[in-house]
Amino acid sequence: MIGGGQGAFIGAIHRFASLGDGQIELVCGALSNSPDKAKSSGRELGLDDSRAYTSYTDMIQSEAALPPETRMDFVSIVTPNHVHFKPAMMALDHGFHVFIEKPMTFTLEEAIQLKEKVKSTGKVLTLAHTYTGYPMVKEARHMIAKGRLGKIRKIYVNYHQGWLSRASEQDGNKQAAWRTDPKRSGKSGAMGDIGVHAFNLAEYISGMKVTHLCAELDIVVNGRALDDDGMVMLKFSEDASGMLTATQVAAGEENALSIKIYGEDGGLEWHQMEPNTLHYRPLEGPAQVLRAGMPYLSDVAQLNTRTPAGHPEGYLEAFANLYRNFTLAVKHREGLSTGVREELIDYTDTEDGIRGMAFIENVVKSSNSFEKWLPFTI
Amino acid sequence: MIGGGQGAFIGAIHRFASLGDGQIELVCGALSNSPDKAKSSGRELGLDDSRAYTSYTDMIQSEAALPPETRMDFVSIVTPNHVHFKPAMMALDHGFHVFIEKPMTFTLEEAIQLKEKVKSTGKVLTLAHTYTGYPMVKEARHMIAKGRLGKIRKIYVNYHQGWLSRASEQDGNKQAAWRTDPKRSGKSGAMGDIGVHAFNLAEYISGMKVTHLCAELDIVVNGRALDDDGMVMLKFSEDASGMLTATQVAAGEENALSIKIYGEDGGLEWHQMEPNTLHYRPLEGPAQVLRAGMPYLSDVAQLNTRTPAGHPEGYLEAFANLYRNFTLAVKHREGLSTGVREELIDYTDTEDGIRGMAFIENVVKSSNSFEKWLPFTI
Amino acid sequence: MIGGGQGAFIGAIHRFASLGDGQIELVCGALSNSPDKAKSSGRELGLDDSRAYTSYTDMIQSEAALPPETRMDFVSIVTPNHVHFKPAMMALDHGFHVFIEKPMTFTLEEAIQLKEKVKSTGKVLTLAHTYTGYPMVKEARHMIAKGRLGKIRKIYVNYHQGWLSRASEQDGNKQAAWRTDPKRSGKSGAMGDIGVHAFNLAEYISGMKVTHLCAELDIVVNGRALDDDGMVMLKFSEDASGMLTATQVAAGEENALSIKIYGEDGGLEWHQMEPNTLHYRPLEGPAQVLRAGMPYLSDVAQLNTRTPAGHPEGYLEAFANLYRNFTLAVKHREGLSTGVREELIDYTDTEDGIRGMAFIENVVKSSNSFEKWLPFTI
Amino acid sequence: MIGGGQGAFIGAIHRFASLGDGQIELVCGALSNSPDKAKSSGRELGLDDSRAYTSYTDMIQSEAALPPETRMDFVSIVTPNHVHFKPAMMALDHGFHVFIEKPMTFTLEEAIQLKEKVKSTGKVLTLAHTYTGYPMVKEARHMIAKGRLGKIRKIYVNYHQGWLSRASEQDGNKQAAWRTDPKRSGKSGAMGDIGVHAFNLAEYISGMKVTHLCAELDIVVNGRALDDDGMVMLKFSEDASGMLTATQVAAGEENALSIKIYGEDGGLEWHQMEPNTLHYRPLEGPAQVLRAGMPYLSDVAQLNTRTPAGHPEGYLEAFANLYRNFTLAVKHREGLSTGVREELIDYTDTEDGIRGMAFIENVVKSSNSFEKWLPFTI
Repeated sequence: MIGGGQGAFIGAIHRFASLGDGQIELVCGALSNSPDKAKSSGRELGLDDSRAYTSYTDMIQSEAALPPETRMDFVSIVTPNHVHFKPAMMALDHGFHVFIEKPMTFTLEEAIQLKEKVKSTGKVLTLAHTYTGYPMVKEARHMIAKGRLGKIRKIYVNYHQGWLSRASEQDGNKQAAWRTDPKRSGKSGAMGDIGVHAFNLAEYISGMKVTHLCAELDIVVNGRALDDDGMVMLKFSEDASGMLTATQVAAGEENALSIKIYGEDGGLEWHQMEPNTLHYRPLEGPAQVLRAGMPYLSDVAQLNTRTPAGHPEGYLEAFANLYRNFTLAVKHREGLSTGVREELIDYTDTEDGIRGMAFIENVVKSSNSFEKWLPFTI
Repeated sequence: MIGGGQGAFIGAIHRFASLGDGQIELVCGALSNSPDKAKSSGRELGLDDSRAYTSYTDMIQSEAALPPETRMDFVSIVTPNHVHFKPAMMALDHGFHVFIEKPMTFTLEEAIQLKEKVKSTGKVLTLAHTYTGYPMVKEARHMIAKGRLGKIRKIYVNYHQGWLSRASEQDGNKQAAWRTDPKRSGKSGAMGDIGVHAFNLAEYISGMKVTHLCAELDIVVNGRALDDDGMVMLKFSEDASGMLTATQVAAGEENALSIKIYGEDGGLEWHQMEPNTLHYRPLEGPAQVLRAGMPYLSDVAQLNTRTPAGHPEGYLEAFANLYRNFTLAVKHREGLSTGVREELIDYTDTEDGIRGMAFIENVVKSSNSFEKWLPFTI
Repeated sequence: MIGGGQGAFIGAIHRFASLGDGQIELVCGALSNSPDKAKSSGRELGLDDSRAYTSYTDMIQSEAALPPETRMDFVSIVTPNHVHFKPAMMALDHGFHVFIEKPMTFTLEEAIQLKEKVKSTGKVLTLAHTYTGYPMVKEARHMIAKGRLGKIRKIYVNYHQGWLSRASEQDGNKQAAWRTDPKRSGKSGAMGDIGVHAFNLAEYISGMKVTHLCAELDIVVNGRALDDDGMVMLKFSEDASGMLTATQVAAGEENALSIKIYGEDGGLEWHQMEPNTLHYRPLEGPAQVLRAGMPYLSDVAQLNTRTPAGHPEGYLEAFANLYRNFTLAVKHREGLSTGVREELIDYTDTEDGIRGMAFIENVVKSSNSFEKWLPFTI
Repeated sequence: MIGGGQGAFIGAIHRFASLGDGQIELVCGALSNSPDKAKSSGRELGLDDSRAYTSYTDMIQSEAALPPETRMDFVSIVTPNHVHFKPAMMALDHGFHVFIEKPMTFTLEEAIQLKEKVKSTGKVLTLAHTYTGYPMVKEARHMIAKGRLGKIRKIYVNYHQGWLSRASEQDGNKQAAWRTDPKRSGKSGAMGDIGVHAFNLAEYISGMKVTHLCAELDIVVNGRALDDDGMVMLKFSEDASGMLTATQVAAGEENALSIKIYGEDGGLEWHQMEPNTLHYRPLEGPAQVLRAGMPYLSDVAQLNTRTPAGHPEGYLEAFANLYRNFTLAVKHREGLSTGVREELIDYTDTEDGIRGMAFIENVVKSSNSFEKWLPFTI
């Protein structure tokens, strides 16, 4: 693990998500730049001092020099956005698979380079689009792929948070500070932080690609340098259209990501805060409430569920599913048996990562334009 | 009542809404152009044959000639959109107050003329923006007017129906037929039919006015002449912004009108299909569930409620509130005592009606434009 | 109408419910014992002074003396519980149909006499078990009658209110005062007021009869003479069992009546506060959300619905359905055509009314007994 | 870990719950009686062959002989009910803390012996009453302890499942087979399996004890030897009363455990299937929706939450909280620093375990009695 020392939030999430299934063990870390903190963080997590490295370069080189049965199998990169690209490139070059916190890189150019490197090394790289890990999201994708909704017509995706309603970055809130800082977050604030999740979810579930967009970004709280609010009208391939809104100033909202998709023959609705339920409304007949863990769900939903129906799973299990699928993908890539059919294995790949980076670029461009519709370009 | 003979849908709604409170009696009607149907419809409703007229001109003239204690007090116009203007003008000219089914008129120009006529005659004219009749909608408006949310920042309003997902206008569905016909519905389909309700609701609750918009209308079902789907980005006075979507091709949806409004200090959420609940989320502290009929609500919400909390009221009671407020307004205008403070009386007036007509015009114009933002003009 | 003068709550409800459909007109009343109030209440409702009677005896006799085309068709009795029996008997004797507010009478003995009178006069008598008027309640009954759940096994019905959590009867709350007074309410408080609705609903939907019960009544708020809380274990015919709870001291609850019924092949769940939704969970396959107004519902549900799906109906429409069915039943009894198949007409009859009175008697008896199970006797 | 080899359900749950926080490592196991399966299960989980034991006696003795820094710290017992007592006694005798799957033992007598052993050895023993691990359950308990509801009056707790609606134990369903078998499950089926969770939850949240009960157990599906359904009326200390229902034949239900508690000043409602929400209804003022992860919650709720509000946690996190609290309790017992105030540490102890066993005994006794109320005895 690179990053994620004491006090780091997302590192603990990655560890919970990766360790629970008993398939992954934490064997080494470059948990902090500070040698003291690197050691003490390592000890707290049961690492051997010799493998609690103080830099990712040291870690990657040292581990690569260990015998195969001892050395780490892959790297998890949980550093801030601007420290994703270099360690990922280096890890790939040294023969390690890579799991990166989202977004893939700091810029679109880096993302494209990284994709090439993945291709040339033949390793697996994934990134944490956590919401795609929910079983009912996978069920929705499966239903649409099977044609259950007919031709898709409309997609509405909304991601509303309220935690940046006040200028808390000026009051010592560290999460708020880096997310509103262009040097650490990139070209966009709310749209880059959460809008890109909404975009990814829409493309993931629908199986369609955005072709044109018309965006408006806004800075609602005075004094910010990056958008904390935005809305985007979308055109998709195959004549569908839709709407994406993302805001971090919806006072009182927690983490309200939701999506509605309508086709000729019915509609689907999913809310991240009640993730085990998928509402399916056929054009005719009663609405149905599909529930995680039920036997009528698809194999892919079953694969991504740990408990019987009615025992709610949540965000950390969705995250654990990212690691589960990544592990399966790595094993498949390495020719190991997994007991799981390959078509069920499903993870965010570099192509998706690049589209996410491109989404941010295109939204910013459109927001600055007087023209209504711009094509989505990479 | 003009229109609303046997088989007419909205006429029965108006009657239920107006008669239940025991303050209004149906005394005459021009229920149908067909003399036979006019008589038989009248008899079914207990009208005297002599007051079951066969044209609105006949009705207005004849009633005006009756002695004041006998003649009707006001006219309800429940005919199709293109037959709103003339009977309304004539009724006003003969000294009758007017209640019109929405939209106010067929064109913006007519609406402006009608407003002038209302002003010059001093009569009360209202139109059926039913959703403003719900007590929790009035509570939301009241809370915002009192500053409970602070300065308003965001408004999201969505109106999703699925009943036009198929080309049912070609299969004998009369409601579908006239709503998809430009000659009877006007310049817009979905946006004129339901989008205008969403627009009205957003302005009504927030107390703000739309100043700019960027719209995209769409014909999803092949063969239609009018939009069955659309989305509009909105800018409001006082720096707020928002999003409005309206569609009649959201397969499986019933009548899903909902609104979320966020200010500096909190947010509100209301769903028409669960109308007795208003979700209030302050920026700090737990979310609250405000419920119709509860003693902590404002006087205006209480005035528009008939039953104790937990005895759900619905669409017809909201509609009855339009008649209740109209009746109160008429009494106030005529100097009669009502026992109700004037500031609690609240109805859709000609100004609102004109803005609704202008919304349709502006949306169509923007949808045809390549420019992103157009000013909202009347 | 007998009772229901100015200031009376339930009278206004009955009027709203009966007038809205335009099939019933208020033609006379004995609205109050006080001559002044009787007149002024009558005027407010548009009654002719000559038919604003000051006693029900006067009203029944005078109306019976009028020519058939003028005189009232039926009587609505909305007086307190102890003034139901006599006017009902007298009205029947004079040839009028009768609609009584629930409960049918003050004692079981009166109820039995009234049933005999109804039988001998051949008139229609119904009582206001309002919750059976909801279309989704009728749908539930229909589904079970059609065998959709298989053999019924379990019924859970709960009716929880909080409005008697404090001794508000001592602070001038008139509703609280008469409902906690044995002289006006009868042998039971909460169980007689709301428990009997729950009992009626369980028998109505399931089509089964309670055969044994084990009850515990409780006085939670000190100083009361009647139960404000209770719970009852139930055995039904055909081996089903269940649980009924009724309380008026569930602080914070509004009018939370709900029922769950499970059979061999699936379950149903309905909540009065969200009355347009019926949850149906088949043993296999996804849960379904049945919604009022949808075309897939039964004819009986359609008959009891006024608006399209998504336009919520509520308590007053359920009440209006009682009057709708009563009117239809009267017309059928009198040989008039209604356009409605007789098997769709459905109202609470004297048999149901007697069972309701017997329920109260049996619950009180069981609560005073040390034995666990007592048979349900009439 | 004792039990929990390949194919075992609850073992995987315990591992996910214990490993995710990175504070616990799986170091040894007696995962299966079969030597082959013990080895292969151990390898799959990364155990050293030398510590993949084939019996718990071997494991406890061998581990006790290892040096302190190497040997295991505690034992998790995840075997069937009748194999809880002996390994727990032996582990305690050899100086290990113990975490047992619920129920504590097979009989009440064993439970009492085990309690004595825990007392005499000074070790920590807990059992998996998972539902007490949810943060909002702890918040509810905290609110009541702080007097937020005033004196408690009513408790309604229901636990409804549908998975035993058919005699699936006769079709090879292993879970169904052992739970319906008196030799493996004990004296009661549904009440012992899930009713006891409901009982524990009611006592846990309310802080009160059941003093009397009146129970009725039922075998709904023909051919079973144990109850698959039951209901219990309850009296609590301090004059409160309540109702508990537990059934496994509620066709279509998943794992619907819910509780409502009402006091003089307000009520609480919680549903296990939406565990991050706690509904709080004060007697006056609007209902509140308390949400996991929000800053207004108590310290004890915060301690048992891993993610920010709106990132749902579920059953596995509740389970992980059991291990978190157990670990903290062990550290406190051993004098190690934890950074957590002792009064925040909270786990199911032997006293609770004994009351759970006694609940089953008392319910069975009452169900067989003709008397209404029996005292709750241990």
